[in-house]
Amino acid sequence: MDAAQGLILETGYSAASLDAVIGRAGITKGAFFYHFKSKAELALALVQRDADADAAHLQSVLDRAEALSRDPLQQLLICIGLYEEETAKLTAPYPGCLYASFIYESQLFDDVTMTVVREVFSHWTRRITGKLEAAMRLYPPRLPVDVRTLAEMSLALAEGAFILSKVQRDAGAMAAQWRHYRNYLELLFSPQIPEPDTGVKRGKLDAAVSAA
Amino acid sequence: MDAAQGLILETGYSAASLDAVIGRAGITKGAFFYHFKSKAELALALVQRDADADAAHLQSVLDRAEALSRDPLQQLLICIGLYEEETAKLTAPYPGCLYASFIYESQLFDDVTMTVVREVFSHWTRRITGKLEAAMRLYPPRLPVDVRTLAEMSLALAEGAFILSKVQRDAGAMAAQWRHYRNYLELLFSPQIPEPDTGVKRGKLDAAVSAA
Repeated sequence: MDAAQGLILETGYSAASLDAVIGRAGITKGAFFYHFKSKAELALALVQRDADADAAHLQSVLDRAEALSRDPLQQLLICIGLYEEETAKLTAPYPGCLYASFIYESQLFDDVTMTVVREVFSHWTRRITGKLEAAMRLYPPRLPVDVRTLAEMSLALAEGAFILSKVQRDAGAMAAQWRHYRNYLELLFSPQIPEPDTGVKRGKLDAAVSAA
Repeated sequence: MDAAQGLILETGYSAASLDAVIGRAGITKGAFFYHFKSKAELALALVQRDADADAAHLQSVLDRAEALSRDPLQQLLICIGLYEEETAKLTAPYPGCLYASFIYESQLFDDVTMTVVREVFSHWTRRITGKLEAAMRLYPPRLPVDVRTLAEMSLALAEGAFILSKVQRDAGAMAAQWRHYRNYLELLFSPQIPEPDTGVKRGKLDAAVSAA
């Protein structure tokens, strides 16, 4: 499955032939068909594996954020900060996102596979929307915002950063965009409006979040 | 070329066979090869066509923004507002972005084609970075920001919104993300910090921008 995913992210699904997948995995055709009836079944298994991993990861990040603060705005900022922290450790750019890869060849997949992709997006949006709504009940935004598209902004930035990473071979693109999303939420909701930047770095705030 | 582009955005480049392209365009193989030596030459022509159109469009939007205000921050906000305005008129979701489609099958293309894609991204980033730097000289940001990744954020959001549009069949995804980007820049740089939203819509500001 890792061999297939790597190949798909380089050439797309269509060009990743079964022979090429088997070749890269170093297995026989018989071994492949022992696990999967077809390439379509492999595609579904791959996207389901990422969907499960991403949902479990989001849950664990939200759990950590909830343990680190009782305040829903802080939870959200910590959650994004944790994603930023993780992605800042990358030394090689992401090879890409399987969902986006499939979306750009969507006519090649059955409804079940594309439904998994759609469900990943709506699950993520629901979880972030829930946190945003809780934050907004305590902190009115400085500009009128639509909460669903504000939640979707995190998805858009992540998908866009995957593309920037690939185009520019830039391992830092994802972390940089998480930071901008976190800045936006802070400026929208935080009761303490930061002073204009005078060259002083945010060491204090960062240290406080780490210490929490 | 339109037929080919439509097909590529549905199935990806690999699965868009020459026969399928010719069939959709309603032309003969001879007619195709009169214009293009190969599918690779068609791919390059397609991406070059989009690159030229996008650069010309950005130039015209920046020209309009510069005519509407002398202030670089306002020019930038107007520029994004004009993109938002245009995309808000969409009644059908975008079929996708050819650059992203090619990026997700990047191993299938020659260096010349992928260089066109990379140059589109760096050209856009340079133009927006220039405006941001001019704005920042007048208006210090409320949070420390990296200007290059702040410019790239517009690209990330556009690419992400293409993906959201496709997944959710949502014509409004792009306009919503332009609005969030504009909000973020306003909150970062605008000397008048907006009051927390009390349900009053932004009619006054919008009217002022239209009047300008």
